[in-house]
Formats: sequence, structure tokens, C-alpha cells
Amino acid sequence: MVPCTPRLLLSSKMPGSVVLRWFVFFWVSLGLRAAEPGSSEGEWRMAAKNYANTRFSDLSEINSANVNELKVKWTFSTGVNRGQEAAPLIIGDTMYVVTPYPNILYALDLKNNGAPKWKYEPKPEAAAQGVACCDVVNRGAFYDDGKIFYNTLDGNTLAIDAKTGKQIWKTKLGDIQKGETITMAPLVVKGKVLVGDSGGEFGVRGWLAALNADDGSLAWKAYSTGPDSEVLIGDKYKPFYDQEKGKDLGVSTWPPEHWKIGGGTVWGWVSYDPELNLIYYGTGNPGAWNPELRPGDNKFTAGIFAREPETGQARWFYQWSPHDLYDHDGINESVLVDLELEGKTRKVLLHAERNGYVYVMDRGTGEVISATPFVRITASKGVDLKTGRLIPNPEKEPHTGKVIRDISPVAAGAKDWQPCAWSPRTKLLYIPHQNLAMDYEGVEAGYIAGTPYLGVNVKMYAGPGGNRGEFCAWDPIKKEKAWELKEKFPVWSGALATAGDVVFYGTMEGWFKAVDAKSGQELWKFKTGSGIIGQPVTYSGPDGKQYVAVLSGVGGWAGAIVAGGLDPRDPTAALGFVGAMKDLPQATTKGGDLYVFGL
Amino acid sequence: MVPCTPRLLLSSKMPGSVVLRWFVFFWVSLGLRAAEPGSSEGEWRMAAKNYANTRFSDLSEINSANVNELKVKWTFSTGVNRGQEAAPLIIGDTMYVVTPYPNILYALDLKNNGAPKWKYEPKPEAAAQGVACCDVVNRGAFYDDGKIFYNTLDGNTLAIDAKTGKQIWKTKLGDIQKGETITMAPLVVKGKVLVGDSGGEFGVRGWLAALNADDGSLAWKAYSTGPDSEVLIGDKYKPFYDQEKGKDLGVSTWPPEHWKIGGGTVWGWVSYDPELNLIYYGTGNPGAWNPELRPGDNKFTAGIFAREPETGQARWFYQWSPHDLYDHDGINESVLVDLELEGKTRKVLLHAERNGYVYVMDRGTGEVISATPFVRITASKGVDLKTGRLIPNPEKEPHTGKVIRDISPVAAGAKDWQPCAWSPRTKLLYIPHQNLAMDYEGVEAGYIAGTPYLGVNVKMYAGPGGNRGEFCAWDPIKKEKAWELKEKFPVWSGALATAGDVVFYGTMEGWFKAVDAKSGQELWKFKTGSGIIGQPVTYSGPDGKQYVAVLSGVGGWAGAIVAGGLDPRDPTAALGFVGAMKDLPQATTKGGDLYVFGL
Repeated sequence: MVPCTPRLLLSSKMPGSVVLRWFVFFWVSLGLRAAEPGSSEGEWRMAAKNYANTRFSDLSEINSANVNELKVKWTFSTGVNRGQEAAPLIIGDTMYVVTPYPNILYALDLKNNGAPKWKYEPKPEAAAQGVACCDVVNRGAFYDDGKIFYNTLDGNTLAIDAKTGKQIWKTKLGDIQKGETITMAPLVVKGKVLVGDSGGEFGVRGWLAALNADDGSLAWKAYSTGPDSEVLIGDKYKPFYDQEKGKDLGVSTWPPEHWKIGGGTVWGWVSYDPELNLIYYGTGNPGAWNPELRPGDNKFTAGIFAREPETGQARWFYQWSPHDLYDHDGINESVLVDLELEGKTRKVLLHAERNGYVYVMDRGTGEVISATPFVRITASKGVDLKTGRLIPNPEKEPHTGKVIRDISPVAAGAKDWQPCAWSPRTKLLYIPHQNLAMDYEGVEAGYIAGTPYLGVNVKMYAGPGGNRGEFCAWDPIKKEKAWELKEKFPVWSGALATAGDVVFYGTMEGWFKAVDAKSGQELWKFKTGSGIIGQPVTYSGPDGKQYVAVLSGVGGWAGAIVAGGLDPRDPTAALGFVGAMKDLPQATTKGGDLYVFGL
Repeated sequence: MVPCTPRLLLSSKMPGSVVLRWFVFFWVSLGLRAAEPGSSEGEWRMAAKNYANTRFSDLSEINSANVNELKVKWTFSTGVNRGQEAAPLIIGDTMYVVTPYPNILYALDLKNNGAPKWKYEPKPEAAAQGVACCDVVNRGAFYDDGKIFYNTLDGNTLAIDAKTGKQIWKTKLGDIQKGETITMAPLVVKGKVLVGDSGGEFGVRGWLAALNADDGSLAWKAYSTGPDSEVLIGDKYKPFYDQEKGKDLGVSTWPPEHWKIGGGTVWGWVSYDPELNLIYYGTGNPGAWNPELRPGDNKFTAGIFAREPETGQARWFYQWSPHDLYDHDGINESVLVDLELEGKTRKVLLHAERNGYVYVMDRGTGEVISATPFVRITASKGVDLKTGRLIPNPEKEPHTGKVIRDISPVAAGAKDWQPCAWSPRTKLLYIPHQNLAMDYEGVEAGYIAGTPYLGVNVKMYAGPGGNRGEFCAWDPIKKEKAWELKEKFPVWSGALATAGDVVFYGTMEGWFKAVDAKSGQELWKFKTGSGIIGQPVTYSGPDGKQYVAVLSGVGGWAGAIVAGGLDPRDPTAALGFVGAMKDLPQATTKGGDLYVFGL
């Protein structure tokens, strides 16, 4: 194990200002990188590696010079052949893996080639499978203070004893009768387990809840729509832009009563800045998809909240896509870094948004410093940095009964849930994403609780060039790509960056790839059994050696055609994604295996 | 590829007798090793590698000196998490893999890391799953003349175009309404596709059928019970022992009409000797298990037939277990080799039988040359070589209403279906097998078509020493073990031997192991995702390098507790096997992946 020790040796020769600058640097770095309690750099205690969501590991035994010698060390079958989106966790000599529904939690012995130590079977309600919009995925667990926290598809949050596998508590948060499921990986901050719901396609009302880690009791719950009292907007709420200001915008920006079924679910990533003591998370699309059914800005959907973890009180909000036209959930991860911008160090968040822009925002205020397209965009014409508003392209605005062609980004976004990695060494953001376009037709939709509530027909297809996926390195200072790699299918896996200057990601055909963090050059690849949509992680094993682990098993929204055995003749299946993935069943098969690689 | 070229260079210096001897040797070797049409040594065209069922490959790039460097080259998920008992086939640059029910056939591109070329989905009747006694396994396919032949669980035999994946013909042979399924790998001899049925636990009547390879029409069908006309016993039938002689023994050795539901199913292995032009195969247990329900020898169950492939006419029969008391199916493979015995070269078959003896038989006549215990046996006291009869131990004879304890071998036998390998270099037979004992109680049983027909309560448990599995090397000349390896669980995988003097097998925990063919020393192992019950194979890839492949995915009778999710609290579940495997669910998980290894 590599303990997280200070890298700074104070020297008497250093002038005071240098010492001070180093001290501040160290303090900030520590806060952002390793604030998770008790963690060591060789462990992986949360899906995103750290509160800053960098998915960067200081381990460097595996590096760009030797990664071509990487070998499979052992494998483990999860026994569940559905989309494997989870990140394995590594704590001490144990690895924890959560499966898709039925959400089995395994503890694997790293001293014994992954032999199971125990398994916990929560037996979630089977009906949850029918409610999940897009495969029955789970994005992982969180370790804190001897407990594994994770969510089950049927809307429960669990605390499991990490040593014994016994359930400590279980709290029901979601209601599958209303179409509410839970797929996200929780984040634990200051003893609060942060959990949000899925189901924006079912007219669910979104929320983020905080449960007390000790007993699972509810500490607070912040809705994404509705009156300020329920959105937890109070005196401390100071948004940067005028568009986010006003009383009860979560009600007034909707047709009457519509906010109650207005979406804004919270199924993505939560970041935390211990210094500012703020959590950051995005809200999902407004419901129904058909925008004509819900005139107005539809606050607080398709945006990002900064909140205090203890109380849930909002500090600011910013709406990526006011009155979202295309199912552009705002739930993608926000990566917290400090950047030198125009001579000043700024505490920013980097956010590759579903609407196609990389946002660089001041994470203290919610100011958009820049918003730059990282893909081809036809749906909008930029972001007005004065007002903060996305500038829609009227030609691509959906209307009921009319087919609008070549909309980009598609409903699944320029990038969906699949998380980026950030390397402080290269100062590049590694973005797994898609290159798709869609035709979109608004249709009538009525709301019936627990059933799909869309009001559109969607057909997605490959964007220009024909490659449906890309993996790129984004320079947020230069506001341009450093390099990009084209992939046949959407890159639906997470990214991992390491101090060995290697970046890892997987493809939907099943390749697990290592590329040079600086140049993007492919250094190594291995063909796993099924398509990869999981989150690669790296850790230091009980033998002190570095390993890389990833789950293989295609599925998720993009891979639902394989995981769910959908009919390729219906391009509108899986909310329109099947049209773009007709040939995936020829390229890969269902699976559910963990692969562990080492030198 | 290594073409199968004659190894003999005729030299003018050789004396005539030497030339003659070499010629005979070559002719015999060719006949036994490579009679499958058009095959090359680098291919693997049938589950057992060759008609002789040796599972020996002449490839030696991977050998005892370098096997410790073996690495996973690629993997492929079958998408089906049930017991994977099939052997992959390799023809040219394509690998063919059959899954358990729903029996999908994949063609994988060896030039492209196993990317699927095509898949064929036969969609067998779902009800077949409920009829299969012990998981929904399939043991593999056969390649001949551009076609892949294989069977589906619901009783169909298929011919598929090896290039295109299109169905050429489909013939229904089994009837799941009666409890008949098909799990075995067919053997094609002289244009006849040989297929037998499964379902001895359902009162099925056993048979071996021969279908014409061109169109799937029935050439002949030989029942295991009933009148000679249906057993295909005629003028050519010359058994060695008196006990096998007489008219219509398939009727007269049963209570009236019982032969119609008497079992003797043919779900194991078929061998073929092109020189003698005889096929060899075993027959399953008589039904019901409870022997008091069926007084008599119960011909022709629990024995071995030699037949002519063109007509099916029987040439001899030998009954391993007359009036079988313990579900001792006789279906294990017969390995055809030529042995020097007491100064004479004899054409023998080696057969590690479920009843615990290794039989060395003259394959021309059906004479038992020797029958030696390869495990601890309490159920019988040897084989009388004069009469050919097994000598039962009266103390262990089952009686209705009485529990008989410590019977060995158990119902699953000393060894079940899992096939041995033979190395002509070491002259050792490598036997994967179990070390179990059982308690057995006869109970009343009535016959209802399509439902289990047992009449016993069985509980299996570990034999002396506590290790439930063993892998041994048997010397059929010395009639003793050369070495043995103990395993925690039954060794339910096949064996593979190579000219590199390495033997491969898998464990139910998921280890794939390479051991020294001479000493049994463990040389290498790799932890696959799930328990291994498949048949390892080796081949020469398109790059000319040697590879080893095996399917991982626990199940089968021994692993049904995991594959079928059975309740470990009922030791009589899975026909009594669950009692012996209660801890398997802690050791492994369901799976279904192909692993390909190379240097």
C-alpha cells in the first residue's frame, strides 16, 4: 500500500511565500484528492476514486513503458449477464463488486485470486426490472467506516458490514409503483449517504436524499422540482445568473401541477469539495420528453446544484439546458480541479455535458467561465456567457407531429453517464463519449403512474464519419481536444487515468484498452468476454503490486439491445437507441465478468 | 497448421519385417488418431479430438518447460450462465462453441480475437429445461464436410453450414413429453450422425440413432432395451460372455413390459475404430433407480455395445453392471489404444467406469482383460474375469425402506461423463473423477411419463480424506495409479493431454491447471470466472502458434446447486448431489465464458 503521506518537505531554505504557496497547494490537493476518511492511494473506496471525481490514481508501477506487458491475473463471474456499469471497490485485501439487478454484493479475497469471502443477496422486487428504463444497471458502492453502502434497483439503500456481509440497515427511498428506481452509486460525505432516484422517463419527481450513515434515517431530501421549501432553497441560495433567481421557480417555470411529475431525477454523480464544503450534482431531464407538454424553463431540471452536505441547503444552481428539448439529463460528473486561467488559480469544476459542451465553471459561484463544444452540435448555437443561457437552434426545435432530422447531440447526449478521468500530470480531461445524430418527432403523451412518459419518437444513428464512439483528451485551458480516438460503437465505459501516464477505457465490442495519456497512442488492448460499459479502477494489491480491474458485460441504455435481447427491427426500441445499435448483437454477447490485470 | 503427414520415411536400409511393422503401425495409428476426414493435427473437429477418444494432441509448442508462461489471450462470453460442458471445435481459422440451453452455436474468428462471425439460435422448446435431470448442459458439436452437427436439449439434431451459419437440416429425435432430452455430442462416422438420448431418470427408453449426414434422414435406430429386432441384434452378434447371450434379453431380463420404460439412455461418448469398423458406446442406468422395481439383469443397460456404423447391427455387448443397483450409467468414454500386454500388442479399449473399475477390454471381442479399482469401492467385490460379471457386495444392496450407508462409488459414479485423456508418450490414462460416498434408501415409485422416476432417496458426501475430487494418471499395464492429485470438489471437467507432456484439467472452483504428464506436478494454474466443467482443447492458430481453450461456467449434475440456484438445505436435491456440494455456492458463481490461452 502507498499511504497518503505529505509530499512536501519544508525546507529552511525556502522563502516564506514559497512555503505558504506549497502549504496551500498541499492543503487543497489533500482536500480534493484524498478527503475520503482513512483511505490510502492504493485503495479505491468510491466509484469515482475521490470526492473530486478525478478517477486518477497516483500508482505508477504500470506505466506507458510497460503497460504492453499487462496480463489477466484472474477473473470472476458475477453470475449476472446484464449491463455491468459498476466500479469495483478495493479496501485492504478485499474487493467489492455490485452486480446489476438482482444487485448481489460480493466480497472477493485479493489474497486468494478473488475467491469469494461472502456474498450479500438483497433480493430486490422483481417488478423493478420492468420499471428500469434502460437495462437494470448499478453503478457501484461506497466504502466508509467499515460499511459498504449501495442501492438496489427497487429503490432501497443498504449498509452492509464490510467484514461480515451482514446487513446493518436498509432504507426504502424509491417507489417502483411510480416508476422510481435507483441505479446510482451513493456518495458518503460527513456521515451522510447521498442517494438520488432514476426514472425520468416515467414522470418521476427527482430528488437527492441524505441518510445518516449510522442508522439509515433520513437527514434531508432535496427535490429537483416544486416549491423552494422542498427544493431546499433558502437564504444561502446565491446563483450566479439572473435566470436562476426568483421564488419557487420549481413551480412557476412549469404548467400548473406539472412539476409533480416533472423529472429532474438524480441518477448520476455527486462530487464534494471539502474546503468549500459543497456537494455538486446534476439533475435529469424534465418529463415528458416532448417539450411542448411543458412550456417554461422547467426548473430545476437539466442543471447542477451546489449544496451544503449537512443540511442540503442549495448554494447555487445552474441550468445547462433550460426547457430541455432533447432528454439532455444534466447528471454527468463534475470533476473538481484547480486551474490556472488567465494567470489566476481558479477553483473550477469541469463538466462534459450531455448537450455537447465542456463547461468550465467557478465551483464557488456557479459562474460559467467557458462552455466549448467537444462534439458536433446542431441542436444549439453556443452558451451566452453573459446570461448563462444555452442558445437553442430554432431549426432543430421539436414539434408535435413533425419529424426533425439530424439533431446532435442525441437524447443519450454527446456523453451520457460514462465518467471522465482527469490527470493532474497532463492537465487533460479524458472523455468517453458518442458520435450520434437523431430524428425526433413529438407525439401526444398522457401520464399514467409507473409507465413510460415520453411523447416523442426517437431514432438515433451514427454521426458524421460513421464512428459511433469517441474517446478524447480535452484541454480545458486551451479549450480544444489534445487528441481523439474513434470507436465503432459509443464508448460507454468510464475512464481511468494514472500517474503512469496511462489512460484506460473499454469498448462495447469488449476491448479493454490502454492509451498514452499524452498522445492517445494505443499501447495495449485485451479482448474481454463481452462489451465493456464498466468503470476501470486501479489498486495496490496485498503483494504491493499494481493491478487494474474492470467489469465486462454489455448493456446499459446503449447496449440494451444485447442485454435485454431487443428486436433490432424496431429502431425506436430502448428509447430510440436500438436504431443506432442494430449491429451490436453481431459484435458481442451478454456477459458479466470481472477482469483483473497486472504485470 | 500442422498437416497430418506420414511420419514414416521408408528407407531402403530397413529390413522387410521392420518396414512391414512400421507400415502396420502407421496404418493403425492413422486409423485411430486421424481418421476424421480431412483433419489436421492443429484442428479439433470433435469433442474427443479423434475417433479413438484420446484427447491427445501432437502439438508441443506449449510444453512442460514453458507452460508456466501461459497467458490469457482472449475471452468470449457465451451469454448463458449455465453449466458449460462443451468442447470448443477449431476448424481452419474458426472456433465453434455450443452453449447450454438455449443451445446457441457461435462461430468465432480466430484471426480477430474471437469476434463472432455468426451465431445460430435454434430456439429449443423451453419446457426441455424442466425435463433435463441435471442442469441444461450440452457436450459439444462435430465437424464434417463443411457442416457442424449438434443436438439441442429439446431432442433435435441439427446440421449447420459451417461457413454461413445457415441451417441445412433439423431432425426431431427426442420427445420431451416423455422426459427425453439430448445433451451428448454427436459423432459422425462414414456419413452417419450418431446421436443418443438422455432422460434415464424419467423412465425413458434409451437408443442410439444414426442420421444420414446429407439430409438428416434416419438410417437406423438401435434401442438399448426390448426385442432383438429393435436392439439391432442379429446374426453378427457374438458377445464374449455367456451372460450376454440369448434371445431377446432386452425383454426377458425385465419384469413384463418394464423394458419400455427401462432406461439405458445413450448420453455419453461414442468411439470408432476404422480398422475393425466398429463403433463403441455405453448405455445408461436402468430405470427406476430402485432395483427392487426391476428384478433381472435389465439388458442392455449399464453396458457397452460394439456395432457396425453402416447398419447399427450389434457385434458384441458387455454389461458393466448387470441389474445396476446404484444409477451406474455405463456411458463413460472408451479410449481405443493398442497396448503391449504380456508380450502381445492388443487392440484394447480403456474405460474408467462409473462402478469404479478401469476396464481393459479387447475391443474386437468384448473380452475383459482386466478390471481394476481406481477408487475405493464398497459396492462390489471385483469383476469375475471368467464370467465377466461384477461381484456385488450384498451388504450394500439397496432395499426399499432401508437406508444403506457408505456406498461407494455413489450414484454419480467414481467418474461420470467427464472424459479422460490418453498420452501415447506416457502411456497413461488421465482420469478426472470424484471421491464420494452415499447413503441410499429405496422408496416406492410409480411411472408417470415425463416426470422423474427414481424410487430412491440419495445423499452423497465426501469419501475418506474429505477431498471430493481427484485427478489421477492410470497405468493400464501395471494396473495402478502413476500419481494422483486431490481436489476439494469433484473434478467434473474433461482432461487434455499433449505432446508437450502437459495435461490440463479444470476445477469446480474455477482453476484451470496444467500438470506434468509424467509426474503430476502442478506447473501452472489460472483462476477463471466460474467453476470449470468443460472440456479443454488445444489447437494451432492462424498464426501457427499453439493455443489452449476451455469453457468456464459451473453446473452439470455436480454443480446444479449453483447453476440452478438450488437450496443447500435439501441434501436430496439434484438427485442427492446437493448434499455433497453445499459449500460450492460459497466457492464459485454461475458463469459462461470461453478462455483462450497461449504463450
